[in-house]
Amino acid sequence: MSVATFSLDDLVADLDDWSVVPADVESASRDRSGSPIGPAAIVVRAGSVEQVQATLRFAHQHGIAVVPRGAGSGVAGGAVAGSGSIVLDLSRLDRIVEVRADDQVAVVEPGVITADLDAAAGAHGLFYAPDPGSVGISTIGGNIATNAGGLRGAKYGVTRDAVLSLDVVLADGRLVTVGRETLKRVTGYDLLGLLVGSEGTLGVVVRATLRLLPRPVATSTVAAYFAGIDEAAAAAIAVRSSGVRPVVLEIVDGPTLAAIDALEDTRLRANGAAFLLAQTDGHAAAIEADVIAEVLAPLATYVETSDDPVESARLMTARRQALPALERIGRVVIEDIAVPPSRLAEAIRGIHAIADETGARIFVFAHAGDGNVHPILVVDGDELPAYAIEAVDRIFALALSLGGTLTGEHGVGLLKRDWVAQEVGGVVDGLQRAIKSLFDPAGILNPGKAI
Amino acid sequence: MSVATFSLDDLVADLDDWSVVPADVESASRDRSGSPIGPAAIVVRAGSVEQVQATLRFAHQHGIAVVPRGAGSGVAGGAVAGSGSIVLDLSRLDRIVEVRADDQVAVVEPGVITADLDAAAGAHGLFYAPDPGSVGISTIGGNIATNAGGLRGAKYGVTRDAVLSLDVVLADGRLVTVGRETLKRVTGYDLLGLLVGSEGTLGVVVRATLRLLPRPVATSTVAAYFAGIDEAAAAAIAVRSSGVRPVVLEIVDGPTLAAIDALEDTRLRANGAAFLLAQTDGHAAAIEADVIAEVLAPLATYVETSDDPVESARLMTARRQALPALERIGRVVIEDIAVPPSRLAEAIRGIHAIADETGARIFVFAHAGDGNVHPILVVDGDELPAYAIEAVDRIFALALSLGGTLTGEHGVGLLKRDWVAQEVGGVVDGLQRAIKSLFDPAGILNPGKAI
Ligand SMILES: Cc1cc2nc3c(=O)[nH]c(=O)nc-3n(C[C@H](O)[C@H](O)[C@H](O)COP(=O)(O)OP(=O)(O)OC[C@H]3O[C@@H](n4cnc5c(N)ncnc54)[C@H](O)[C@@H]3O)c2cc1C
Ligand SMILES: Cc1cc2nc3c(=O)[nH]c(=O)nc-3n(C[C@H](O)[C@H](O)[C@H](O)COP(=O)(O)OP(=O)(O)OC[C@H]3O[C@@H](n4cnc5c(N)ncnc54)[C@H](O)[C@@H]3O)c2cc1C
Repeated sequence: MSVATFSLDDLVADLDDWSVVPADVESASRDRSGSPIGPAAIVVRAGSVEQVQATLRFAHQHGIAVVPRGAGSGVAGGAVAGSGSIVLDLSRLDRIVEVRADDQVAVVEPGVITADLDAAAGAHGLFYAPDPGSVGISTIGGNIATNAGGLRGAKYGVTRDAVLSLDVVLADGRLVTVGRETLKRVTGYDLLGLLVGSEGTLGVVVRATLRLLPRPVATSTVAAYFAGIDEAAAAAIAVRSSGVRPVVLEIVDGPTLAAIDALEDTRLRANGAAFLLAQTDGHAAAIEADVIAEVLAPLATYVETSDDPVESARLMTARRQALPALERIGRVVIEDIAVPPSRLAEAIRGIHAIADETGARIFVFAHAGDGNVHPILVVDGDELPAYAIEAVDRIFALALSLGGTLTGEHGVGLLKRDWVAQEVGGVVDGLQRAIKSLFDPAGILNPGKAI
Repeated sequence: MSVATFSLDDLVADLDDWSVVPADVESASRDRSGSPIGPAAIVVRAGSVEQVQATLRFAHQHGIAVVPRGAGSGVAGGAVAGSGSIVLDLSRLDRIVEVRADDQVAVVEPGVITADLDAAAGAHGLFYAPDPGSVGISTIGGNIATNAGGLRGAKYGVTRDAVLSLDVVLADGRLVTVGRETLKRVTGYDLLGLLVGSEGTLGVVVRATLRLLPRPVATSTVAAYFAGIDEAAAAAIAVRSSGVRPVVLEIVDGPTLAAIDALEDTRLRANGAAFLLAQTDGHAAAIEADVIAEVLAPLATYVETSDDPVESARLMTARRQALPALERIGRVVIEDIAVPPSRLAEAIRGIHAIADETGARIFVFAHAGDGNVHPILVVDGDELPAYAIEAVDRIFALALSLGGTLTGEHGVGLLKRDWVAQEVGGVVDGLQRAIKSLFDPAGILNPGKAI
């Protein structure tokens, strides 16, 4: 068994599950970005930390690219594998090693599905705060490697805020621990933070100690509609200034509301041209929701509040069904810029203008609590048409011109690489490459991604 | 004007404020750790970013050590300067450039005093959350370089959580920006996080964009006394499990209570052998305080709650006066370990045992919300006696044996360097040194500190 540049026999001797079957390798070489570049030579389904180490030692020795892979739910092409490479699938390492309720931590392997961790925490009266829209499919390893965000980020932050310590296999196969199982620590440099969000380019996460939180005793929901995006964005700022830090603070634009109406047979768009959803939790959830509703009342066309789970679920439809509604129209391309909170309205208006000028169909929802805007392009067919590529490029330029960033939570992956130096500047770009060389001198770990 | 190894004439040509007067240089070569190694050759009081750059360019060219300095309030020897070195004092760069209320950010120079930023934020209905005990004297640059924590950390985290973007002068004098003025971002590696807490060894912070928060509309305080440390630590865990995340959650041990009684003529120690202080804030402060008081009632010997500022100040005496009371007894050496929250009682009991066995006088208070324990040694005279050195070493060993860390918030500085490799392991120690070399190939930036 061999491919053009290396023989796999020595590698597979150390493994218990791998495949070179074209269909297997092909599907393991893609993620949700739909950017094919491979396929890889082999997919290794690691069954132990030792197998991860053996794979990296082999690849390091022979100079073969290794693409770490969780669930392949990424939308930036981070897990897309080039031809001749090794896909290192971590999904079999899916044990929740322990939940320690007194410390409010969980120790998990990287292949654990995000929602499964949350459920396991629930059995101890705890929860796992980071909740990307992909909770049901994404892995903790992928979440850590992309520093995934989610709806609850307005109050609870991103994945980095939940990671206390990681076991990481370095490019040459050595196993190290970064971080510590304490909530606070300043010994040495923050290598833990450096590893989080590094998209599999600095090391492979094989174990994580994660922070959990007490499961909220109650949740309240506020839904409001506005005459337009400017009013809704101003309302989001007013909420942030109220002294209540909502768990969830989401904006949905008019075109998306209309798309949901078409899917769900609702009349949401008739309520207004922009939607704001806020959620509060904990012992004071109801009081905090009242404060938010009062702040919104003078700005909104319509406000509704509920403490009841069934009612709340209905109020959340306008956000929950946004992506499914757009997926019914065509193939969705999910973008992910972030801007300073005060520039939110400008960003969304700018995106609408780009849609008008390029002819691209672009819908927008945003994590208004942290200025993270998701422009969703809907296209026909697999290839991205030229006008859509132009629209995306103009969205990136818009983000940078507003003091914003190319990616709030999805990562750079393969797709945004050409833009990184423009955002970070030449000197920082050079430092990033030097750090990459330091961790991975042979350049085998997910080459061509993230930086 | 010259010293043994280099001439300063070229340097001072670019400066408007510097001194080689022995008394000036001597006092600028020390911090609160009381560890003299210098004095430096010169103290440069930078009046502009250009002067910082000129100083570093000069030092880089001639291979001269540069010790960045804020207020010198550090207790780990981070700002202690070796002989022949340049002290780069940033305290003149003390402008609050702007407070942008809509974005809830402030842009500041590094020499701004922490409390001054908080006051400036207050004029916009905002506050700056990190509140080290030294707020009145420490600088933002020093806080960033040490990743300072404080009392409010239980709810609001540490300095890193407040830093969005930094302008940093690198060792060779180049100026870069790391981070971005957005609340969320995953473009490239987290160099921002790497710079925060790097104790002046990777770059000099010359400007920071910091996150502010709405000033709480109300605050409530709960004070409780317990039969012993075990009960108080169990109570802290119960509070953390209650679903309320208090702003402040502090433990004070019996010996410290007795010391406060001696200073203040109070009878605190008579209430119990351990004290727990909790504070809540925001629209639901009172409700949350009631939840905490209910959780504490069955565990405590005595519980008192107040929403009144004057009463609250009285309840806080047992924590606020802890350090002043100990300073009255002798010279204090402030230690700073952190352990997983469930090991808090073991850590404090272990420290008491070390005190008994070595004969050192050790008092303990702790940020119970995040397991950060401050053993305070009280000694006579300037030199640390052998039994005190032994006690400190045993405290570090205890921290590591409990899965903890050498330093929760004060930094490694000069004093804890010999212990770093034991905590992080040889491979990570090597990576840290390699990162240092990458940022500072000539090794001029605060050599011999932090890693
Ligand atoms: C419907 C949908 C909704 C989504 N919603 C969100 C959202 O709200 N927020 C958000 O942030 N993202 C969201 N995403 C994007 C995606 O789910 C996240 O990026 C997720 O974190 C990827 O996890 P994964 O296990 O699928 O990783 P993959 O896609 O397999 O990999 C992602 C990156 O991580 C690396 N990687 C994976 N595992 C490891 C490991 N163990 N060690 C080192 N590197 C590793 C890969 O090399 C790659 O660079 C969404 C995606 C979809 C399809
Ligand atoms: C009474 C008292 C109470 C304290 N309470 C706390 C507390 O609650 N929490 C806590 O975390 N600390 C506390 N400290 C420690 C100390 O105040 C903090 O470490 C503070 O952050 C130091 O700030 P500084 O400006 O004095 O820095 P310095 O002591 O001057 O320097 C500290 C470190 O930062 C570096 N540095 C300073 N400025 C810069 C810059 N602009 N760029 C790069 N590097 C720089 C120095 O080289 C040094 O390594 C306390 C100290 C005292 C005396």
